[in-house]
Amino acid sequence: MITVNPARRLTFGEVVREHRRSFADVVAFVDGEVRLTWTEFDDRTNRLANALAAEGLGAGDRVLWLGQNSVRIWELLVAAAKIGAMVCPGYWRWAAPEMAFAVRDFAPKVVVWQHEEIGDTIAKARAELGQPDGVRWLRHDAPQEEPDGYEAFLTAGSPEDPALDVDPDTALLVIYTAGMSGSQCGSMLSHRNLLAMGATGGWLGDIDHTTAFLSAGPMFHIGNYQFWGVPAFLHGGKNVIVRRVAAAELLPLLARERCTHGYLMPPTIVELVELNASAGHDLSAFRASVAPQLWAGTVQVDTSRFTANGGGEGRGYGQTEVTGFVATGGFGGSGLGNAGRPGPFVAVRIVAEDGTECATGVAGEICVRGELVHLGYWNRPELNEHRFRGGWWHTTDLGRREPDGTISFLGTTTRMLKSAAENIFPAEVENCIEAHAGVKEAAVIGVPNERWAQDVKAVVVRHDAAGVTAEDIIEHCRARIASYKKPKTVEFVDALPRTAQFAKDYAALDARFGGGGYPGGETLGAGR
Amino acid sequence: MITVNPARRLTFGEVVREHRRSFADVVAFVDGEVRLTWTEFDDRTNRLANALAAEGLGAGDRVLWLGQNSVRIWELLVAAAKIGAMVCPGYWRWAAPEMAFAVRDFAPKVVVWQHEEIGDTIAKARAELGQPDGVRWLRHDAPQEEPDGYEAFLTAGSPEDPALDVDPDTALLVIYTAGMSGSQCGSMLSHRNLLAMGATGGWLGDIDHTTAFLSAGPMFHIGNYQFWGVPAFLHGGKNVIVRRVAAAELLPLLARERCTHGYLMPPTIVELVELNASAGHDLSAFRASVAPQLWAGTVQVDTSRFTANGGGEGRGYGQTEVTGFVATGGFGGSGLGNAGRPGPFVAVRIVAEDGTECATGVAGEICVRGELVHLGYWNRPELNEHRFRGGWWHTTDLGRREPDGTISFLGTTTRMLKSAAENIFPAEVENCIEAHAGVKEAAVIGVPNERWAQDVKAVVVRHDAAGVTAEDIIEHCRARIASYKKPKTVEFVDALPRTAQFAKDYAALDARFGGGGYPGGETLGAGR
Repeated sequence: MITVNPARRLTFGEVVREHRRSFADVVAFVDGEVRLTWTEFDDRTNRLANALAAEGLGAGDRVLWLGQNSVRIWELLVAAAKIGAMVCPGYWRWAAPEMAFAVRDFAPKVVVWQHEEIGDTIAKARAELGQPDGVRWLRHDAPQEEPDGYEAFLTAGSPEDPALDVDPDTALLVIYTAGMSGSQCGSMLSHRNLLAMGATGGWLGDIDHTTAFLSAGPMFHIGNYQFWGVPAFLHGGKNVIVRRVAAAELLPLLARERCTHGYLMPPTIVELVELNASAGHDLSAFRASVAPQLWAGTVQVDTSRFTANGGGEGRGYGQTEVTGFVATGGFGGSGLGNAGRPGPFVAVRIVAEDGTECATGVAGEICVRGELVHLGYWNRPELNEHRFRGGWWHTTDLGRREPDGTISFLGTTTRMLKSAAENIFPAEVENCIEAHAGVKEAAVIGVPNERWAQDVKAVVVRHDAAGVTAEDIIEHCRARIASYKKPKTVEFVDALPRTAQFAKDYAALDARFGGGGYPGGETLGAGR
Repeated sequence: MITVNPARRLTFGEVVREHRRSFADVVAFVDGEVRLTWTEFDDRTNRLANALAAEGLGAGDRVLWLGQNSVRIWELLVAAAKIGAMVCPGYWRWAAPEMAFAVRDFAPKVVVWQHEEIGDTIAKARAELGQPDGVRWLRHDAPQEEPDGYEAFLTAGSPEDPALDVDPDTALLVIYTAGMSGSQCGSMLSHRNLLAMGATGGWLGDIDHTTAFLSAGPMFHIGNYQFWGVPAFLHGGKNVIVRRVAAAELLPLLARERCTHGYLMPPTIVELVELNASAGHDLSAFRASVAPQLWAGTVQVDTSRFTANGGGEGRGYGQTEVTGFVATGGFGGSGLGNAGRPGPFVAVRIVAEDGTECATGVAGEICVRGELVHLGYWNRPELNEHRFRGGWWHTTDLGRREPDGTISFLGTTTRMLKSAAENIFPAEVENCIEAHAGVKEAAVIGVPNERWAQDVKAVVVRHDAAGVTAEDIIEHCRARIASYKKPKTVEFVDALPRTAQFAKDYAALDARFGGGGYPGGETLGAGR
């Protein structure tokens, strides 16, 4: 058999080299005053790749970004791609100890950092790390002449293409998420992961070389890359990058760059529409996917498969570790399950604790196999081995196959309860309670019980305070799920507490209603 | 670094397992009276996989099909995928010695053969091979009870999924083409090649789970798999297979299965439209790409990227060895070059004889790198090494980058001429002559010259017999291409001879005008 050879490999570096041939003078990236054609971008990433190599970086070495959105994240990614290195865009809102943790954990040879807005936090992190820290710190928003500035560093690099053979199955983009271990873990995404995601995204979102994507979502999050940064990049489209979301700055940009797509949230959309009532920009190139009604007819409504089947409203399932959404209503059409079906590069199985596949309608852990599954977490061999057991990536999320073949995402399994020897997933019980016509929403927590480990407690918001009793809810559950999963007690509240990300705030519920004793330890965020 | 593990692999077997979950009772394949849901298809391919394994087939082993189009080719492909074997759908029009050559060259453990129409040819091939031939011969159109029949063989297989880990970078589909060596060579396409082609095809052709593809093109040719058999398979659509093209049989099938796409040639379309003038079937689900005007308004006109940019009219470039078309006008929009730009999984370079990249506008060999490049030819290590030199697949085809980044496919380099020390590619000279306003078409051959090896001779069809002289054409070329490439003599004809595949018939031209002495030996078909 013939082994893989360079002719059968495509890397992010090769994508840019090809776009230089195909779209030489077409603008690839816009960021403030910076406008780069594919030729200029290829040249700059050659310089940066050579400068990184001169700094001692090669295959498997790491660069950490501590700043807001910037075209320089793309430059670092493609430069790293050309020498086999990897790049982590860190979260600029991290506190100083979190930044210091990321530097210690990821052990980058180079950190590119931003002074504006977060200079003080970074100074504290560096103080915590002490000296020497073994890291080359490059300030990306430094004046041109600053020797430890990004531009000076890049400009000093040789302009020749390094022309190295890079394996597309190695890590390129690393994103920190809350893994099941409770601490932040860096999910390593390969060239191939991103190419498969970009190709799927092109099909889902109707993305091509005419796409102009307003990259206004956070670049430390997979969402902004998938919808639609990487698909636009892969198809020769344009990424228009904004440092952070400020409607007054976005509006003229949307018009000037004739953006067709954007990563925008409803509050921003409302602001944009209000501002444009007087500004009167022509936004007709834009295709709204999220909350199109908010645009009040000033833009087109996106008609791609993704949006038509509810993708813009979050119908789908994904996590960073599987390169974002792996199932959406866009694949096979929407159906009973809120997550649709898997796309062409993945398979999904719902798996019971014993590793067998669950029957249709039975909840279990969502497991994924295919081209979108990440390489694992950086520097977490035991966790990786556990999560990759049986030849499938275990997401720690709870789901179910519906009779029509679609998948329901029910919640995370990391907030597992334990009653006697039985494992209970709150999401499954909540899903059952919320199917009661009198219930608006519900949260399930575990309260310590000396004999049985934990009791199941439901906290319920009713449509009508007179409508449903605790007994009704318990009986409703008894009829529908295994008896040990039904709540032992029910509390009624007017509203559930919410986190800043609008998730149910289980920590607040535990504090108020005496929750605790979870076998998996402290409650974790879902990390997506 | 973590090595590739089964969770990061997707095979053709896994695609079918997933479709069984996502689209259990949806019809996947239709062939005559046979209608198979994804569940039935998964079950049948499990049985067939186990039966093949019981026959001694495993990773890297081979099955040869000698018959016309059939759903059984798909069954063999997916069964082989489940055990790591490969399948070659041979050309049913092969003469007996060619069939015997394929059996000797491919060395299959199992040959599935068809009695109808080609039973006599196969009997002759088997006589030539002699006994024992070490092959299990299974007749696919045998009665159910025939022990050496395909159905009996399949039915005897265990129904359990073999559940083996198969490497998606190994060969699955093998297609014989005329390689540069002059003999037929089996191009080995991997699971990954076909998945990348299927995903790209979905984007290009607007293919999804609602696609019903009339698989009327030959299944020994990559074209029918790419447009749109594999994309439909990958996205959960339906393949409607016909044994061979007979308009009277196709017409009711198009209507009954509500086919949306089909691999149909203009003469068949004309017949279909004539027949339907009286039959009156509703063909409104069908989207015409090739020659939509012939359908006279009875079907939809395909508006996919592929068709909108001339793909249906053959605008694009490909060969079996790169899994079909790798460049089309659908990628980046149509432009100057007749082959468009490369798609998202490949890069294309135009390379000079010394291995350096040609400048824009300069003709050279089309070289390809990426996920669509095949594994190589079966059992041709030296040829593979040569064609993969420098980390790029060398197509032996001549092309040029145009100033707008598109590619022009100029012809094959295998018909190279030699004049003194210079290599001359007829396609480049023909391209130049055909750019003359008075010329309709041209073919260039080499005639032996004792001193200079060959002289260049052009055979030209004029728009107007009085319009252009031989001197005009020679001067036209002198002004546009290197002087040694210009024709020394010009012959005018009313029409160029054509092969059965409508290619210029160079053998006939050589015979008529004294061509010969080619440094590359005998003229070869382009094999696509």
